[in-house]
Amino acid sequence: MLDLAFRPDRAAGEPLRRQLEDYLRALVETGRLQAGERLPATRELAASLGLGRNTVAQAYEALCDDGLLSAHVGQGTFVAPRPRRAPAGELPAGHAFAWEGLLAARTRRFALPESARMPDPVRFDFRGGGVDASTAPQVELRRAFSRALARHGTALAEYRDPLGWPALREAIARALVSRGIAARADEVMITSGAQQALDLVARCLVDPGDVVAIEQPGYFAAGVAIAASGAHRVGVDVDEQGLRTQDLARLLRSRRVKLVYVTPAVQCPSGVLMSDDRREELLALADEHQTPVVEDDYDSELRLGSPPVPALKTRDSAGQVIYVGTFSKAIQPGLRIGYVVAPAPLLRRIALTRVACDLGTSVIGQAALAELLAAGDLERHVRRARRLYAARLALLDDTLRAELPDGASWSLPAGGNCLWLRLPAQADPDEVWRGMQSAGIAAARGDLFFVDGRGRDHLMLGVAGVDEDGIREGVTKLGRIVKRAVARRAA
Amino acid sequence: MLDLAFRPDRAAGEPLRRQLEDYLRALVETGRLQAGERLPATRELAASLGLGRNTVAQAYEALCDDGLLSAHVGQGTFVAPRPRRAPAGELPAGHAFAWEGLLAARTRRFALPESARMPDPVRFDFRGGGVDASTAPQVELRRAFSRALARHGTALAEYRDPLGWPALREAIARALVSRGIAARADEVMITSGAQQALDLVARCLVDPGDVVAIEQPGYFAAGVAIAASGAHRVGVDVDEQGLRTQDLARLLRSRRVKLVYVTPAVQCPSGVLMSDDRREELLALADEHQTPVVEDDYDSELRLGSPPVPALKTRDSAGQVIYVGTFSKAIQPGLRIGYVVAPAPLLRRIALTRVACDLGTSVIGQAALAELLAAGDLERHVRRARRLYAARLALLDDTLRAELPDGASWSLPAGGNCLWLRLPAQADPDEVWRGMQSAGIAAARGDLFFVDGRGRDHLMLGVAGVDEDGIREGVTKLGRIVKRAVARRAA
Repeated sequence: MLDLAFRPDRAAGEPLRRQLEDYLRALVETGRLQAGERLPATRELAASLGLGRNTVAQAYEALCDDGLLSAHVGQGTFVAPRPRRAPAGELPAGHAFAWEGLLAARTRRFALPESARMPDPVRFDFRGGGVDASTAPQVELRRAFSRALARHGTALAEYRDPLGWPALREAIARALVSRGIAARADEVMITSGAQQALDLVARCLVDPGDVVAIEQPGYFAAGVAIAASGAHRVGVDVDEQGLRTQDLARLLRSRRVKLVYVTPAVQCPSGVLMSDDRREELLALADEHQTPVVEDDYDSELRLGSPPVPALKTRDSAGQVIYVGTFSKAIQPGLRIGYVVAPAPLLRRIALTRVACDLGTSVIGQAALAELLAAGDLERHVRRARRLYAARLALLDDTLRAELPDGASWSLPAGGNCLWLRLPAQADPDEVWRGMQSAGIAAARGDLFFVDGRGRDHLMLGVAGVDEDGIREGVTKLGRIVKRAVARRAA
Repeated sequence: MLDLAFRPDRAAGEPLRRQLEDYLRALVETGRLQAGERLPATRELAASLGLGRNTVAQAYEALCDDGLLSAHVGQGTFVAPRPRRAPAGELPAGHAFAWEGLLAARTRRFALPESARMPDPVRFDFRGGGVDASTAPQVELRRAFSRALARHGTALAEYRDPLGWPALREAIARALVSRGIAARADEVMITSGAQQALDLVARCLVDPGDVVAIEQPGYFAAGVAIAASGAHRVGVDVDEQGLRTQDLARLLRSRRVKLVYVTPAVQCPSGVLMSDDRREELLALADEHQTPVVEDDYDSELRLGSPPVPALKTRDSAGQVIYVGTFSKAIQPGLRIGYVVAPAPLLRRIALTRVACDLGTSVIGQAALAELLAAGDLERHVRRARRLYAARLALLDDTLRAELPDGASWSLPAGGNCLWLRLPAQADPDEVWRGMQSAGIAAARGDLFFVDGRGRDHLMLGVAGVDEDGIREGVTKLGRIVKRAVARRAA
């Protein structure tokens, strides 16, 4: 019998079946178990390891499913033959070709900025934009996929309307009532995340060289989509009431602006809720200059205050607000489903553009999401996520207060799971950044959110990927780094 | 008790439960059953309609799940209250805003051509590009989604590497051995269908105004993606050996060509397999001019001949062939998963571009597909699909021979489920097209596949959406239309 050095760890969270599976997988993949080799019978192995026979059988089955083992009735379980590989001589050299010189100009310009670089390894994950995966409705999602496939069968197999799966468009139109928006299903288009909605809108409305106004600081990936369309991005400053509409007015008078991009519910990254007056002024300006407004309502479900402020689009009497929403925050980003609400004539144009892009979002995923929404568990799930983030943000607030030196400033966001921190003016931001890299503190540096290079003295701290202990320890370390930088400047 | 005019149709393929569900749904949606109205008890309704009680109960449950009915223990089942709607005055006018004038120039230019227009209603569906949904591996897919969600849980919730889910990249790299390609997993990127792969490659490598060489006739959606990047498309003719490399050589000498797009396994739409000599010549030219080649291997699994011809990429010693594949043909398009194989440095650039586009393909869908591939049922399924399409194409060939007048020409494709038909020179193609519209015969007109306006005398006939009776009847009608057009020209 094979001599297996496997020792089950009963204290680990991982099921024993899984531990054994992983162990055997490693033996096969590293070649320590060779193709054709016979594994011990489940009964023998179970006895020798002190495991249940079922546990061993399940581990074997999982590895058979993965093609690493193969079972032969009456003979036993064997390491599967290796997949045939082409002779090494046929391996494409790959790097011989001079790709760099062939890249499009916009591709060459596009690199991940220093401000988005993450330490390696990440010890304290304050990156923003994600969710705490423990809040994802796993069981409900599994049920929803199963029901969608059982219920709609072959209808999910085909190319479908690039505007989206009808039941999902209906469900979103109904759900938007809670944001104050009365939209018809034919005004809703399903996209692969809010990011694709932004990309499609930019591709449809923006010619290279056009001016697009974006918040500053503002959501950087929206800026990336807008820049990819060839637009010239102009930042309009944000203060504690949201976008400074007087600055926008000045810009609109001096330049032809093709699009204005805003995040009124939870301004990204500052967390500010756009005030009532600013909303009125923004729409009046858009109307006067006949400029479409993109409202990215990405974090509205995760509001901290209550009651919710209705979407900007509810005041959109001329139909010039393009509303973008997502399930990445309320459910999970891995689903990659968002949507855009716009007048049907514009949506039809966007649908044509989608032929170039990808011909539509996964039909199965859309149908499953429609099932999930119909089952109605979403609101309960969102409440749970909201409580979790509120508690973590409150702890972050407390810990910052305790650990950061005078001069640092921040305020709690209107919603979501991120906080926008300004470092003390006395601290050299580059020194703080270097300190964070060596301490393994991952966060986005503020200049990622500016188009004019400002913002190095800011950090966006997200709490989705860090638990309470991590917040305490990470902020304590950050506090030490900032204090040291202040002291050095003073010296 | 409510008077229901429902009459179960036992001869219909649809289950009775589903028939009743659809009937009741229509009553609710059209308002004939009002919110709050009480439905008959399942026992009563079952008796009055001559149905099993379980059948009625299941129909009620499905409608409760969809939120149209609501059940109250001890009281019965009621039509659910209508979702609250904002007052009509708040409805955005939508059409008041002058969107047409705001569209980007490229968007304004982009309209669905006449050659892609479909009759309404479609009676004989010879559209190409899809699959027969009955060949989709429904049960296997359902199992795969369920296993993926159970096995990977929260790992599927988050944003993941835009290059794709590691297990799927591994599985594709392994499967590519059957196409003769030895790729590492880090040379495989998952995309939302082959269409997105083409779009990303074009966005990454093509600047506005660059020249891209495409087959003529050639796959129109590839042309759309290339045009969307601002490229100038130049068609290179195709003959019975595939792309005419001597024409390409002339083009490469006279212009700087940024990219060459080809479909060597099953040329779209002509169905031609690119000959060995042409493959050699194409790669020699690409090498000489340092021009990347995109190989779209979309239909290779559905080959009609055997054994399979290895991919062009197998001869790619310099690493300048970008290989695009898809699961839309071998599994189903509704999955929206394809992939691109390219040297890792280029893939990293493409992954950056994806930040602008959509941040990645559905993680759940990718993990499910990895499970499906690991379970190994795919080859059996592909064989079934291949047999189905081969039989239909043979029937189409026979029926064309019997029904079309002299002068029409075609040949069986190397694979896939489409056939490229040339009408007799004596028939006015516009008259044939009008005849097809009134007879309800849906097919793509040939000029859809040309960039220079030629091709109106061709049709692409697909057999995925039409069964044997439909082929016989549809082609008989088409034959009559063509004969009439020939006769009129002669008169």
